[in-house]
Amino acid sequence: MTDSKHTRIFTVDLCRSQTAETGTNYMIYLDNAATTKPSQKAAEAMLMSVEEFGNPSSLHGAGLRAEKLINGAKENFAKTLGVDKKNIYFTSGGTEANNLAILGTADALKRRGNRVITSKIEHPSVIEAFKKLEKDGFDVVYVGVNRDGVINLDEFSKALTDDTILVSVMHTNNETGVIQPISDISRLTREKAKNCVIHCDCVQAFGKLPIKPEQLGVDAVSISAHKIHGFKGCGALYTKTRISPLIVGGEQQNEIRPGTENVGGILAFSAALSECSFDADEMRRKRTLMKNLLSEKLDNIVINGSCENNSGSVLNVSFVGIKAEILLHSLERYEIYVSTGSACSSHKPQPSHVLTAMGASQKEIDGAIRISFSQNTTDSEIVYASEKIAEEVKNIRKYM
Amino acid sequence: MTDSKHTRIFTVDLCRSQTAETGTNYMIYLDNAATTKPSQKAAEAMLMSVEEFGNPSSLHGAGLRAEKLINGAKENFAKTLGVDKKNIYFTSGGTEANNLAILGTADALKRRGNRVITSKIEHPSVIEAFKKLEKDGFDVVYVGVNRDGVINLDEFSKALTDDTILVSVMHTNNETGVIQPISDISRLTREKAKNCVIHCDCVQAFGKLPIKPEQLGVDAVSISAHKIHGFKGCGALYTKTRISPLIVGGEQQNEIRPGTENVGGILAFSAALSECSFDADEMRRKRTLMKNLLSEKLDNIVINGSCENNSGSVLNVSFVGIKAEILLHSLERYEIYVSTGSACSSHKPQPSHVLTAMGASQKEIDGAIRISFSQNTTDSEIVYASEKIAEEVKNIRKYM
Repeated sequence: MTDSKHTRIFTVDLCRSQTAETGTNYMIYLDNAATTKPSQKAAEAMLMSVEEFGNPSSLHGAGLRAEKLINGAKENFAKTLGVDKKNIYFTSGGTEANNLAILGTADALKRRGNRVITSKIEHPSVIEAFKKLEKDGFDVVYVGVNRDGVINLDEFSKALTDDTILVSVMHTNNETGVIQPISDISRLTREKAKNCVIHCDCVQAFGKLPIKPEQLGVDAVSISAHKIHGFKGCGALYTKTRISPLIVGGEQQNEIRPGTENVGGILAFSAALSECSFDADEMRRKRTLMKNLLSEKLDNIVINGSCENNSGSVLNVSFVGIKAEILLHSLERYEIYVSTGSACSSHKPQPSHVLTAMGASQKEIDGAIRISFSQNTTDSEIVYASEKIAEEVKNIRKYM
Repeated sequence: MTDSKHTRIFTVDLCRSQTAETGTNYMIYLDNAATTKPSQKAAEAMLMSVEEFGNPSSLHGAGLRAEKLINGAKENFAKTLGVDKKNIYFTSGGTEANNLAILGTADALKRRGNRVITSKIEHPSVIEAFKKLEKDGFDVVYVGVNRDGVINLDEFSKALTDDTILVSVMHTNNETGVIQPISDISRLTREKAKNCVIHCDCVQAFGKLPIKPEQLGVDAVSISAHKIHGFKGCGALYTKTRISPLIVGGEQQNEIRPGTENVGGILAFSAALSECSFDADEMRRKRTLMKNLLSEKLDNIVINGSCENNSGSVLNVSFVGIKAEILLHSLERYEIYVSTGSACSSHKPQPSHVLTAMGASQKEIDGAIRISFSQNTTDSEIVYASEKIAEEVKNIRKYM
């Protein structure tokens, strides 16, 4: 009984030692809409799950302690969202949360009506879920957006029928940072479709803007850990309406989302949330700084998406006349990381469905780069990156 | 550019300091079929994902490094299973892997036939998936088991028809440790149902026994990280046949399982696998030691499930005349953790479907405890636990 393997203690040490001006040891990460670096507290919470490793469904003390921890995390999410914690379901990420909301709601309400509505600029996990509903016989409408990337409310209003059972429109677009008029969407829906559930993909907004489903007038909200300095593999769906499970099995999470809970991922998500600044003004200031610096240094650039209705977390900019992928790779020598479109479809090159829906020209689409910020992005990073981006754009343009 | 937040370095320190004879600081964890403690290497791998935090789908270096790491992990699983790595899909755990295998295969093959077959002792994530298929119009057969907990091969053979498209039988039962005759299942299926896919839930077997789908004669295998000292929230499905996705969205994992990969969970799973002993003889020796010690000290006990065809990882024992839950809680004062039935349904007390299918009596079911071992369980833990279990059973029997 002298072996103490069960009492291993892990500690997390933060070494702030390595720095460099030019990038060899220092990454300027401007792809925070794709994923973020887990925070110190998130990592510590993950390691706590090594000590508190019980199965939350186990009846003994080790299980109860794990259950208590995830209940505490759930309370943290409920408080931040201003909702009842019994309506929060942990998932494997934003994709599953969106799928569960859309496919689960449509299945639960299919006897009430057949129309379901979304927009043309949703994340693939929303668009593809609606394509699945289309195959299953639902009457799907994909509403367009204007040149600024904001959903066309007239078109949306016309799509609403009294047999509309589901509306899903994102809060903040992942490619442009444009905030959609969710309160208007809600008001119009409540007027014209009494039996309709409104889902809002808040993956890019949660932790950056105050997201309160009640105030937005929505019934369901999806969120994701790794977009706010938690770990990949964890997300959540809040929904106050009836829903069918996507995954079936044990009795976990009221049988809406069975499977042993990802305790470490949930605790880390909650810890990351507690560090979120929710400071959209500061984020918008950073975005404007980058926009102004690039506009000063370069001509023939186009900012994609509204600057007024923007979360500030994304600057989508077209460097007309260049191929964005060439710029992306040329910036890597400085360890400056940006993206072209969204990460989840970057391996299958095809024109951005978001910029296409906004009516951008082919040249604007070809030259579009997404620069996305985190609350940790510094002004000096923005200044340095803007200089290198301008240099590289000029170089590339010479050879085009 | 002096802020070095992007170069934080986490370290993991192992302190083997706390020990105690009596249990206040020392847990004797005998519920390893419910979940296991993440290993040191698994924790280190998880922390590596904090440094290598790129999105594997991102085109830049940070993304490519993450992609390379998960490809390395995939190769490790492929090598261990003796399969092609292109046929491995990471999931959020065993439950999702089982659901994807069963619902995804049935959907992909529904035009070929309507019969699907499983057993009465499967994990809820398999049983419930078949119940869903039943609702969707499939002709489902749940094959029974004998008193030893082994599937009835005659009954299975009779259930096979030439329009059977899916067979799913588990390798090692989670409540009894009994190994099912998968090779016989495969041989019979290949003889009578040419178009049939065979899935095997190997969640309780992988890492403990050598699992090679080719040798077992199966087409698909589910595995889970947190049963082999990885973290909760990660599993995988190997399948070489056509399958429909459960979750839709981006292009990750050939669109069979979209969503940003759980990089940390995958790396930790792979690291945990590299520490697995695969020593079933040693596991069986531990099980026999516990069985013999309890049999010496107590009368009126029944061992549930075959001892010959057993993985050794589980000892299911009925202390006739007591309520198992009372024993479970009385052992907690010594920080000895065991379970009644499987964790995933322990909060909804109902008689074990496994022991019921085996024809156990009500008294045997009421008094059944699952003691489950890990490769780290020591003989001294087994001796100490057997003494305390015997004491407590005697005490409880006094008052019944």
